[in-house]
Amino acid sequence: WGLIGLYSTGGFMFILSKSKEQSLQMVTFLKEHSWITRGTRVVFIDFSMYNANVNLFCIVRLTMEFPATGGVIPSWQFHSVKLLRYVTYYDYFLASCEVIFCLFIFTFLIQEFIKLRKLKGDYFRDAWNWLDMLLLLLSLFAIAFNIYRTIEVSSLMENLLSNSDSYPDFYFLGFWQTRYNNMISVNVFFAWIKIFKYISFNKTMTQLSSTLSRCAKDIIGFAIMFFIIFFAYAQLGYLVFGSQVDEFSTFQNCIFTQFRIVLGDFNFADIEHANRILGPIYFITFVFFVFFVLLNMFLAIINDTYSEVKADFSVIPSREFEISDLIKQIIQRVALKLHQFVKNDLLCF
Amino acid sequence: WGLIGLYSTGGFMFILSKSKEQSLQMVTFLKEHSWITRGTRVVFIDFSMYNANVNLFCIVRLTMEFPATGGVIPSWQFHSVKLLRYVTYYDYFLASCEVIFCLFIFTFLIQEFIKLRKLKGDYFRDAWNWLDMLLLLLSLFAIAFNIYRTIEVSSLMENLLSNSDSYPDFYFLGFWQTRYNNMISVNVFFAWIKIFKYISFNKTMTQLSSTLSRCAKDIIGFAIMFFIIFFAYAQLGYLVFGSQVDEFSTFQNCIFTQFRIVLGDFNFADIEHANRILGPIYFITFVFFVFFVLLNMFLAIINDTYSEVKADFSVIPSREFEISDLIKQIIQRVALKLHQFVKNDLLCF
Amino acid sequence: WGLIGLYSTGGFMFILSKSKEQSLQMVTFLKEHSWITRGTRVVFIDFSMYNANVNLFCIVRLTMEFPATGGVIPSWQFHSVKLLRYVTYYDYFLASCEVIFCLFIFTFLIQEFIKLRKLKGDYFRDAWNWLDMLLLLLSLFAIAFNIYRTIEVSSLMENLLSNSDSYPDFYFLGFWQTRYNNMISVNVFFAWIKIFKYISFNKTMTQLSSTLSRCAKDIIGFAIMFFIIFFAYAQLGYLVFGSQVDEFSTFQNCIFTQFRIVLGDFNFADIEHANRILGPIYFITFVFFVFFVLLNMFLAIINDTYSEVKADFSVIPSREFEISDLIKQIIQRVALKLHQFVKNDLLCF
Amino acid sequence: WGLIGLYSTGGFMFILSKSKEQSLQMVTFLKEHSWITRGTRVVFIDFSMYNANVNLFCIVRLTMEFPATGGVIPSWQFHSVKLLRYVTYYDYFLASCEVIFCLFIFTFLIQEFIKLRKLKGDYFRDAWNWLDMLLLLLSLFAIAFNIYRTIEVSSLMENLLSNSDSYPDFYFLGFWQTRYNNMISVNVFFAWIKIFKYISFNKTMTQLSSTLSRCAKDIIGFAIMFFIIFFAYAQLGYLVFGSQVDEFSTFQNCIFTQFRIVLGDFNFADIEHANRILGPIYFITFVFFVFFVLLNMFLAIINDTYSEVKADFSVIPSREFEISDLIKQIIQRVALKLHQFVKNDLLCF
Repeated sequence: WGLIGLYSTGGFMFILSKSKEQSLQMVTFLKEHSWITRGTRVVFIDFSMYNANVNLFCIVRLTMEFPATGGVIPSWQFHSVKLLRYVTYYDYFLASCEVIFCLFIFTFLIQEFIKLRKLKGDYFRDAWNWLDMLLLLLSLFAIAFNIYRTIEVSSLMENLLSNSDSYPDFYFLGFWQTRYNNMISVNVFFAWIKIFKYISFNKTMTQLSSTLSRCAKDIIGFAIMFFIIFFAYAQLGYLVFGSQVDEFSTFQNCIFTQFRIVLGDFNFADIEHANRILGPIYFITFVFFVFFVLLNMFLAIINDTYSEVKADFSVIPSREFEISDLIKQIIQRVALKLHQFVKNDLLCF
Repeated sequence: WGLIGLYSTGGFMFILSKSKEQSLQMVTFLKEHSWITRGTRVVFIDFSMYNANVNLFCIVRLTMEFPATGGVIPSWQFHSVKLLRYVTYYDYFLASCEVIFCLFIFTFLIQEFIKLRKLKGDYFRDAWNWLDMLLLLLSLFAIAFNIYRTIEVSSLMENLLSNSDSYPDFYFLGFWQTRYNNMISVNVFFAWIKIFKYISFNKTMTQLSSTLSRCAKDIIGFAIMFFIIFFAYAQLGYLVFGSQVDEFSTFQNCIFTQFRIVLGDFNFADIEHANRILGPIYFITFVFFVFFVLLNMFLAIINDTYSEVKADFSVIPSREFEISDLIKQIIQRVALKLHQFVKNDLLCF
Repeated sequence: WGLIGLYSTGGFMFILSKSKEQSLQMVTFLKEHSWITRGTRVVFIDFSMYNANVNLFCIVRLTMEFPATGGVIPSWQFHSVKLLRYVTYYDYFLASCEVIFCLFIFTFLIQEFIKLRKLKGDYFRDAWNWLDMLLLLLSLFAIAFNIYRTIEVSSLMENLLSNSDSYPDFYFLGFWQTRYNNMISVNVFFAWIKIFKYISFNKTMTQLSSTLSRCAKDIIGFAIMFFIIFFAYAQLGYLVFGSQVDEFSTFQNCIFTQFRIVLGDFNFADIEHANRILGPIYFITFVFFVFFVLLNMFLAIINDTYSEVKADFSVIPSREFEISDLIKQIIQRVALKLHQFVKNDLLCF
Repeated sequence: WGLIGLYSTGGFMFILSKSKEQSLQMVTFLKEHSWITRGTRVVFIDFSMYNANVNLFCIVRLTMEFPATGGVIPSWQFHSVKLLRYVTYYDYFLASCEVIFCLFIFTFLIQEFIKLRKLKGDYFRDAWNWLDMLLLLLSLFAIAFNIYRTIEVSSLMENLLSNSDSYPDFYFLGFWQTRYNNMISVNVFFAWIKIFKYISFNKTMTQLSSTLSRCAKDIIGFAIMFFIIFFAYAQLGYLVFGSQVDEFSTFQNCIFTQFRIVLGDFNFADIEHANRILGPIYFITFVFFVFFVLLNMFLAIINDTYSEVKADFSVIPSREFEISDLIKQIIQRVALKLHQFVKNDLLCF
């Protein structure tokens, strides 16, 4: 939960009043009775604000951590979430979209279920089906959370309106709203990837996607080799510069820093200052091996596979790529899909 | 028109006086009668300055926007434009160049017209002809605007000189001058591209340009695939980091930020702070797939096509590249062009 | 030892007292009797701190150098080292790990010794054996240093506890601790590299590693050519910009700066300001030759070798890569290793 | 000479006194009589300093320019030059090195002269001979300047020592010293390049250098195409962003900025602010065409040529590369060279 470490639940909570004087008194009281002792590791200050103009809640958590070395490390979390949905007309439009989405997910679910029953074991062979299932599951989660959130917010708001002194803990909701948003975004990301399933309408496209899928094995194989050397360097950087350069302070950070070196965004002066001999050696050998040599292997693999695939495809008679042709295909495909879909629906009912 | 949103025309305008005291009185008056109310969304302050030394108008628009969340967001626009042309001798030299340009455009127009009449439908088959037409149209627009501007400025200046109290709205002119400059620059850009039409004097050049044109189809095909994944990542970044990192605040910004990641200019710390888990996953998978794998596909396509083209060209007997040869060719070409041009002109009249 | 130059041992040492007043008196005394004269080149201030919370010593050396051009250049060194080991339970767990490591190194030593006796001259042919020997030597050094450190620290601490006024020179220990850490990290780096020895379980892997080893000769050959041009540019940059741009102040810095230019992290404005003509020429020709042309040769070499290796391997019948297969192989390998190891041990005793 | 423009010689010079009061009086006098008028375009303040500790002159020129738009733009030039050479023992060692260098250049000159007489017209066919001549000429220039400088400095110093009030114009000398340093550095750069002449001792090396020389024609051909598009973009950037973004303020700057975009060091926010529509279009199309597509053509050319060259060389029987072999060759080569050299010398006298 915190910045330095994870803090398990357990601890004391103190709710401040709404008026400034009372809060000041309370804080003074806490100070006098030394609420914060030597053993205190962390203090959280939570509060929520609501801006009616833009209909957004801002749930704020200020954190003050007391590390073992002394001093205080402050940090902050702001969650701007829209908890009161369905207020303006536009929101109602969104609500209707959501209903349509639910219906679509429902039919999609049925369709997948039929496909699963038909194909049985073969269903799990195809990676696309796994993607479909993932998308469906995430969508169902999203719908469930949406319903839960609406109920929870309305109960919290009721509480708040009836008893204006109590503190409604929006942090919990804001936290889950953020998780939910992340889930949604991952879902949308995979939905984008699904486009590839329908992109093989054209010879060029098939050629390119088959290049990528054919060299995947080699790429993964080489990625393993690449990351062994990459991790060896990360380990070296962590042990040599870890205690002095912030960017190498953890093994994870070393990995990110090295990716940034490859992309060209880093601070050489720090590395050199941390270690006058190993710093430059680390940097130059890293750039030479990883940037000059290993990175090019990825290219060599892709290049070679592309040549092969192209040679294979040149046997197949090439049709000239035409926009009209493409559109025609799309229309036919849509028609076919609709037909199938209707048939499936008829089968289903 | 504004920074946050677009503001449709409509609103109140208030012209300040030239003397400081009067303006102060006016502003005080406005303040007392609350000119800026709760409903005010934006205030523009327009004024123009003229520096006689360098003969440039500076048209200034200061914008103050009042967003729904409260506060004021100031922004500015400066347009330095040369509205009074033809003042020094050098300007008159430029004017004569402009006249020559107009004549050239005129003959070019006629030439294209003849070509169009001769070839009819085939004319629109060749991409170079489309480029020629575009260049011609933009040039004609530029000439038209130039004439309009000269007339408009002189009328505005007359107004200003006769009635020194009135406010001449140079903003409109400065705005269009900027648009005009952009149009001109796009025109010049395409004129540069046109050089390629005449560059096929040499075997090496033909070989290289035919490589580019031959792999164009594959490059476009792959660019579509590339941008599907690119947009999927942009969508992910927008939804996950959008509310916390400025560089991901809009979908457009995400695209630009991702281009900058590929080039190596970005801020990893912000991404990591915004989301401790998805941030690094997003970054590392993006770098791996897009920078390590997909970017290399472009190279593989170009590389393969180049090998093919070179194999095709090696059948044609290779002449040694010599400067004298090149110059000879250029002279012949120019002579031929002139001949054709004269003939065309004779035909035209 | 210093920032500007190396200072040989020899000079005066003055130990300050523990109380503030006494120290102030001492410093005043030094000032009055002009301890720092015109001939003084450098002043070191050494002190150590111990934070009991995190059980870390911080050994600080503040350096003030007086260059010939006048002024003072301050610099600092902080060594955070854990000199008191084996305090908490976790430390005892680490201690037991160290004991196990020592045992492992011992058996590994015997194994290598047997291998050396068996193979004799052939032993030194294989680069892997050299790596093993290096790892062993570094590990033995590390163990020796560890024992020495423990003894030295305990004697220093005893000294300190018995006579609290004396100054314990932890700097020496901190210095060697840092060297030791560097040695350890290099050792761990090579241990990572050793993974490659065991990675040839799979056809893809063998193919990739044999590509790298086969093109090593060409890569090294080209690296020599590359670095001739690279050093020529570094020399040019050093002589032209050396006196004005900090990043080109030494030949070494020029090399690092050029690596950073290749990666895309540099300051063009400084170069241009230092020399208005040679600056841009240097920059553009460097980018063109090194970034556009030479860097691509590495790729060309790798690409060509990969094609060759793949063609060679395609003759060998390809088995489908399966995870189960991989795991089976690993188990067999481990079993075999264990068997061999036991046999070797039996032979050894 | 200046920052904004070039200022031709001509103008007034005023020498300040050595004492502060007199200088102040002089400046006051100048101010009262309005030395700086409306027509003044630039004021230079020149002075020199000498630091005896490091034996370096610092020749300072402070420039204040008055642009047409008003205000003052200050700039500075510092030349740190060693005008008094041959002071310490180390300097005398350098002097003896210089004498040896002169002797070497002399013999080298004679050798080249003989070669020239022997080969006549064929001499100018070989690019290496041109390089040799360039090196010789630059070396002779350097020697000549060195002699001139020594004489000039001693006469100036004599002047200064006899008449301490006069102002010795070291700026002229510092200016030429800088030019001389640049010449020297270019000379050293070409001397590095000359190493390539002697590098063809090994099959791998020959293979690599012949790849580079064989693809030179194609690389240059493509570089022309590349720079047409590059300049088209530079022109576009200049016209669209020129008046608002500092990095696009001149055509030259645009070229440098675009190189920096390719390397990944630039400021997208400025471009976007300057033009909300053309800015992103410029950036994205530039990255796509230049970074994704055109840059890869260089690689394709090099890659293809390397494959060809390797195929050609594989016919020649390959000898295993051995260090001993290499050293043997070097010794033989040196012996041969010495032999030739002695013979040439004998012929020469």
